[in-house]
Amino acid sequence: MLRPLTAQERDWVENTLESMSLRERIGQTMQGHAGRAPFRGIEGAELTAYLQRYPVGSFFVGGEIIQKAEGRAGDYRSWIEGLQRASRCPLLFSGDLEFGAGSAVRSLTAFPPLLALGAVDDEALAYEYGRFTALEGRAAGFTWALAPGVDLLLNWLNPVITTRCLGDDAARAARLSAAVMRGMQEHGLAACAKHFPGDGVDYRDQHIVTTVNDLSEQEWFATYGLVAGRLIDQGVLSYMTGHIALPWVEETSSGGKPVPATVSLKITTELLRERLGFEGVVLSDALDMGGFLSWGDYRKRMIDCFNSGTDVLLWPGLRYFEVMEAAIAEGEVTEERLTASVRRVLEMKARLGMHRIDAEGRDPEAILLEDDKLPPELDREARGLSRQLAERCVTLVRNRSGQLPLDAEATRRVLVIMLNKVTAGRTFERMDIFVRLLRERGIQVDILDEFEPLDTLRKWEQEGSRWDAAFAPYFMPLHGMMNSSRPVGEAAKAIWAMQQAETIKPIGISFATPYLLQDMPFLDTLVNAYSLHEDTVEAAVQAIFGEIPFQGISPVATELPRVFIKGKAGGLS
Amino acid sequence: MLRPLTAQERDWVENTLESMSLRERIGQTMQGHAGRAPFRGIEGAELTAYLQRYPVGSFFVGGEIIQKAEGRAGDYRSWIEGLQRASRCPLLFSGDLEFGAGSAVRSLTAFPPLLALGAVDDEALAYEYGRFTALEGRAAGFTWALAPGVDLLLNWLNPVITTRCLGDDAARAARLSAAVMRGMQEHGLAACAKHFPGDGVDYRDQHIVTTVNDLSEQEWFATYGLVAGRLIDQGVLSYMTGHIALPWVEETSSGGKPVPATVSLKITTELLRERLGFEGVVLSDALDMGGFLSWGDYRKRMIDCFNSGTDVLLWPGLRYFEVMEAAIAEGEVTEERLTASVRRVLEMKARLGMHRIDAEGRDPEAILLEDDKLPPELDREARGLSRQLAERCVTLVRNRSGQLPLDAEATRRVLVIMLNKVTAGRTFERMDIFVRLLRERGIQVDILDEFEPLDTLRKWEQEGSRWDAAFAPYFMPLHGMMNSSRPVGEAAKAIWAMQQAETIKPIGISFATPYLLQDMPFLDTLVNAYSLHEDTVEAAVQAIFGEIPFQGISPVATELPRVFIKGKAGGLS
Repeated sequence: MLRPLTAQERDWVENTLESMSLRERIGQTMQGHAGRAPFRGIEGAELTAYLQRYPVGSFFVGGEIIQKAEGRAGDYRSWIEGLQRASRCPLLFSGDLEFGAGSAVRSLTAFPPLLALGAVDDEALAYEYGRFTALEGRAAGFTWALAPGVDLLLNWLNPVITTRCLGDDAARAARLSAAVMRGMQEHGLAACAKHFPGDGVDYRDQHIVTTVNDLSEQEWFATYGLVAGRLIDQGVLSYMTGHIALPWVEETSSGGKPVPATVSLKITTELLRERLGFEGVVLSDALDMGGFLSWGDYRKRMIDCFNSGTDVLLWPGLRYFEVMEAAIAEGEVTEERLTASVRRVLEMKARLGMHRIDAEGRDPEAILLEDDKLPPELDREARGLSRQLAERCVTLVRNRSGQLPLDAEATRRVLVIMLNKVTAGRTFERMDIFVRLLRERGIQVDILDEFEPLDTLRKWEQEGSRWDAAFAPYFMPLHGMMNSSRPVGEAAKAIWAMQQAETIKPIGISFATPYLLQDMPFLDTLVNAYSLHEDTVEAAVQAIFGEIPFQGISPVATELPRVFIKGKAGGLS
Repeated sequence: MLRPLTAQERDWVENTLESMSLRERIGQTMQGHAGRAPFRGIEGAELTAYLQRYPVGSFFVGGEIIQKAEGRAGDYRSWIEGLQRASRCPLLFSGDLEFGAGSAVRSLTAFPPLLALGAVDDEALAYEYGRFTALEGRAAGFTWALAPGVDLLLNWLNPVITTRCLGDDAARAARLSAAVMRGMQEHGLAACAKHFPGDGVDYRDQHIVTTVNDLSEQEWFATYGLVAGRLIDQGVLSYMTGHIALPWVEETSSGGKPVPATVSLKITTELLRERLGFEGVVLSDALDMGGFLSWGDYRKRMIDCFNSGTDVLLWPGLRYFEVMEAAIAEGEVTEERLTASVRRVLEMKARLGMHRIDAEGRDPEAILLEDDKLPPELDREARGLSRQLAERCVTLVRNRSGQLPLDAEATRRVLVIMLNKVTAGRTFERMDIFVRLLRERGIQVDILDEFEPLDTLRKWEQEGSRWDAAFAPYFMPLHGMMNSSRPVGEAAKAIWAMQQAETIKPIGISFATPYLLQDMPFLDTLVNAYSLHEDTVEAAVQAIFGEIPFQGISPVATELPRVFIKGKAGGLS
């Protein structure tokens, strides 16, 4: 539950609310994308005029999780201070700080992804994960993390959650995500649990189409509901709704469409707010996602989203102002509903100390950066945490023939079969870290990354090539909009090609999905490393050579029962 | 059941068997890949010497179904006659004649794929499908079709069967595949039902890994068993075993691996031959496939494959001769077992009239080609059948808003959103036929085939572009080794991108998987055309403009219940 506001905070909220025009109140209920706003090269009076015309309440900044981290912390901070100076009401700045502030800002610390944190399964470290995200994030100007993920990886085919959640076990996910959230919020960063009512059951991606969480009421409360209850109980300040339907609550619209939470009064207001008692800010997921676009025309989408109980709409575009003005004038949206949302947003701003932002736009609660990082001692601690998580997450999933650890002395020549390729035209990069680390050990590394002809490996063997070990590292980015987390295209051919060998037993290493055995059941040896996070790749190599132990505990069941999908026809149910 | 041999045929079999050396008998139990044998530029005495050293019993010729048809019928026929002259025992020539002889030989007639035949659901036309495959095939020198497919598309995720089978309904598949088989065998072409015990239940591809048919005994007999029973009852001459395990028969090997039919005595001998009473030739699927390679080393693979009850091994390579000679010498393979298989192969040769091949290698039962085709009247009939099947297969899956048929007069400008792209580097080709047919009608065709930025379509609309119709055609080749039949990569982005539009309602057209609604549930209009077979694309366009009716009956359930896969963990079962 949320702590009561202090008298000073309450006064600031009510005075601010009182002073706002209708348009300013509408602005509090949307979040802009700073990278898409025309901010380049405008400042001073021009910027002030822009923010008077479009008095947006919060902005998303930094790299997106689906893209790459970019920029330097100091630049973000100065830019954000300039925007605060130009805005009449203090702004919130959000970012995809899912795996540390380094997820969004290149000069800050990137941690292994949430699934790796799930493999470490240490509540104290989860708290530190949140704490350093907050210290670094706030130092760079962020006040709102669009994190932590509270989804559950229940369907191994899900193409979007993959390593962005804490696994398939609700109790573990609740424990760890609550710790991350507390670590953030106790250090000045609002957390946003995402997504409600829960991603990870569908085989599709809500970026592409509306997805469905098909659990029954009982199943939902034992899983997603359990996690949500914990987060709410411990005071999470915001919750992100997804373009995800929940049929036990609402089957379909009158037009036969699934009803995503982002437009569902039953899910967002009746379930999340009333039944679960969530008092914080409801933020929608991005409104340019495919899962939202097919709901109706722009006006219908916006009004339905707001009226479902959403407090802040993510990236609705500036047309939102006129649509909402008209809707209020026509009674489609009530002023009471608007005021309730604005009050919640202002309350969150007060809790974060935004009323103490000074006239220069400076945040007195943010640590001062040194060389675009935290001060040395804290920075060392953040980097140490990254390293510690890396060492503890690497998971030995299978070691049937006792192949691991390898003897470092006896391993002089290895083969690497690249599973990070989709087609001749598209290779998912960054596997070079792994190869470089092998070469730095003085190992000769032969690389197989062309799979036509398929029997290249057998030909190499026939010519006399022999290797002391063979690695099959797999990577697919989070998310490269593949609509699949499985090896496809050239990666699938690589799986075929490696079985042509007679003299090797490939060691699989997944730097992505934890479910590689679903497509490579023949592997005797598999290591899950969850990401190409640099410390983690180093730790994986060290564990493979026995220099550190494998300590990770898989956060999902990796040896699934055969999960076959039987069709309706042919007498099958 | 197979008809008894005539006295003349029986004499030829026994005399031939009697006259054969051990090596010649071993050769009868393998099938070579003519395209990979060193046949280019050798003839006469040199060719005879090669076939004496490697007295292979049959060869695969022509394009593979996973590749493209190639070559001219007359060239195949002369080449095959040359090989017959050089071989002491008459050879069989097989091909992937799955969708007409045009599947393998470019100058012959290509029919729509089996799934389209399923949508036509006409037993008489199925018989003609087989008959013309046989007449054309035998005229080009083929005596053995690796067809028809008798698999069932029970799992919509299956990446390899897709349109290569007759659907998800066992009764329909049995009726139509038996008709195709009779059409073939009554016109001189041995059929080979494939695959045993049945593909289409797994989400994986047996080219890549061993797959599993996970049905229960009862489910299996109601589906795959029913089809197999019909084919065997009606006298199919051969059956292809797949690298597919059947756990109700054999759970796993002592080493914990699934046991594919190709090495399983229980599946191939006890179930197929003894319980189902199949008396014909058992041909393995290709032995260079990933689903077979992981079974063991080369020697173990070959011996286990033969001893499971396989009569003919597909593409084992020439090392097979020495491995079998040693295995017989060491008692691992018995001469009785070898003789039984050779007798079955020779019986099939006799049934096909191979004892009447003349000294010049000529086949008196083959129709003479004219200009690399059948004589004009028959050729017209074959092309007419192709056209008729095309017109009758096109299926209107959804037409919720009555958008189809389109008014040809009023449709002057259309948008085509290309769903045939995986990455910037890989576009599945041939969609140009569709675009060309639209342009030939005088329609202005705008094409969207770049999906970054995602809002291009909305920008075009804002600039004033309007279309009378929008098409979203989908294609993925059969099979492009994608390990998926779903839209992935750029195609998935295209699905997102099209929902940005405010002024169009895209008409989906699948030229591949019949399950496009699983990834594009928001479509109000969907046409399934099953392939880019040229006549079919023409028929689809005609049906869309109301010039011919939509006549196809979907051979699979296209509106599947939501098929979600719940994980083991988190209290779910």
